[in-house]
Amino acid sequence: MTVSAADVHALLRDRGATLGTAESLTGGRLAALLTAVPGSSETYVGGVVSYATSVKTEVLGVPPEVVETYGVVSAECARAMANGARRVLGATYAVSTTGVAGPGPQDGVAAGTVYVAVAGPESVVAVALELVGSRQVVQDRTCEEALAVVSAILTGEETSLG
Amino acid sequence: MTVSAADVHALLRDRGATLGTAESLTGGRLAALLTAVPGSSETYVGGVVSYATSVKTEVLGVPPEVVETYGVVSAECARAMANGARRVLGATYAVSTTGVAGPGPQDGVAAGTVYVAVAGPESVVAVALELVGSRQVVQDRTCEEALAVVSAILTGEETSLG
Repeated sequence: MTVSAADVHALLRDRGATLGTAESLTGGRLAALLTAVPGSSETYVGGVVSYATSVKTEVLGVPPEVVETYGVVSAECARAMANGARRVLGATYAVSTTGVAGPGPQDGVAAGTVYVAVAGPESVVAVALELVGSRQVVQDRTCEEALAVVSAILTGEETSLG
Repeated sequence: MTVSAADVHALLRDRGATLGTAESLTGGRLAALLTAVPGSSETYVGGVVSYATSVKTEVLGVPPEVVETYGVVSAECARAMANGARRVLGATYAVSTTGVAGPGPQDGVAAGTVYVAVAGPESVVAVALELVGSRQVVQDRTCEEALAVVSAILTGEETSLG
C-alpha cells in the first residue's frame, strides 16, 4: 500500500508532531509532495536540499569524518542528515534521502543505491534501498519510500508508547 | 520566451557561478526543477525550504524585525531570504520565493501575491508579482518567474561588466 503525503500529514497532525526534510538525490521533490497537501504548514516546517557536500556538512552539520569514512551515499550520512535537519529545523521528526539517481554510477556507487533515514525523539532509523529505473523513477521511488518509512515510524512509535 | 532550468544551468556554468534557493510558497518545486537538469550539481549547490517562519529567521537569518514590520510576504522578506541563502549555502547567487499560493488569502494578503528576489555579488533585486490561478498554477508560475529573474540578472550583469 502506497503512503501518500496526505497520509503522513494526517498522522503528524493527530500526534501534534512536525516534520522536516533533508534531501540530496530527491532535490526538493519530497518537500514539493509534502507542501502540495492543503494545510501542510500545520505539520511541515521546511527542509534543506543539500545537493553539494558542503551544504550537508555546513548547514546540516554532517560530520566531515562521516563523509570521509563512509561517503555521502551511506546509511551513516543519511542518519547524520536526518539528525541535523531535525535539530536545525526544530521539527519533531526529520526524514533524509541520499543516493545515486543515475543514470550512471557516482564515485563508484551504482545508480539506484539509496539510503533513507528518519530521526525522531526516540530513534534514528536508516533504510537501504536498491532501486531500478531511470533517474526520475529512482527519485520518485525514493520519495515514496521516504513517506512509507515516516509512516512506519509514526505508527510504530505509537504502538510502543501505547 | 520562457527560461528553462537548463538555460539557467548553462548561464551559470558559462560564468563559473553557482546558485542556491530559498523557497517558501514553491515548497521545493524550484529546487526540483533545477536538479532535474543533467549535470546540475556543477552549478546548483542546494536550498532551504523555509515553510515555517522560524526556518526563515533561524536557518536563513531573516531578521525578525523584517517579519514583524513587513510580513513574510514582502519584497523585504524576499530580499532577506535571498541574502541569507547566498551566505548560508555559499553560492554565488541565490533566488528566493515568498507569497500566497492560495486558494484563499493568508494573514490578509490576497492569493497570488508573490515576491521573488535574487541576491548576487553585485546586487539584490526583488520583483513583485500578482498571479492569477489555482494553488498549483501560482506555484508553477512563481518558479517560471524565478528562473526568468535569475537569467535576467546573469545576462544583465555580464553586460554591465563587459
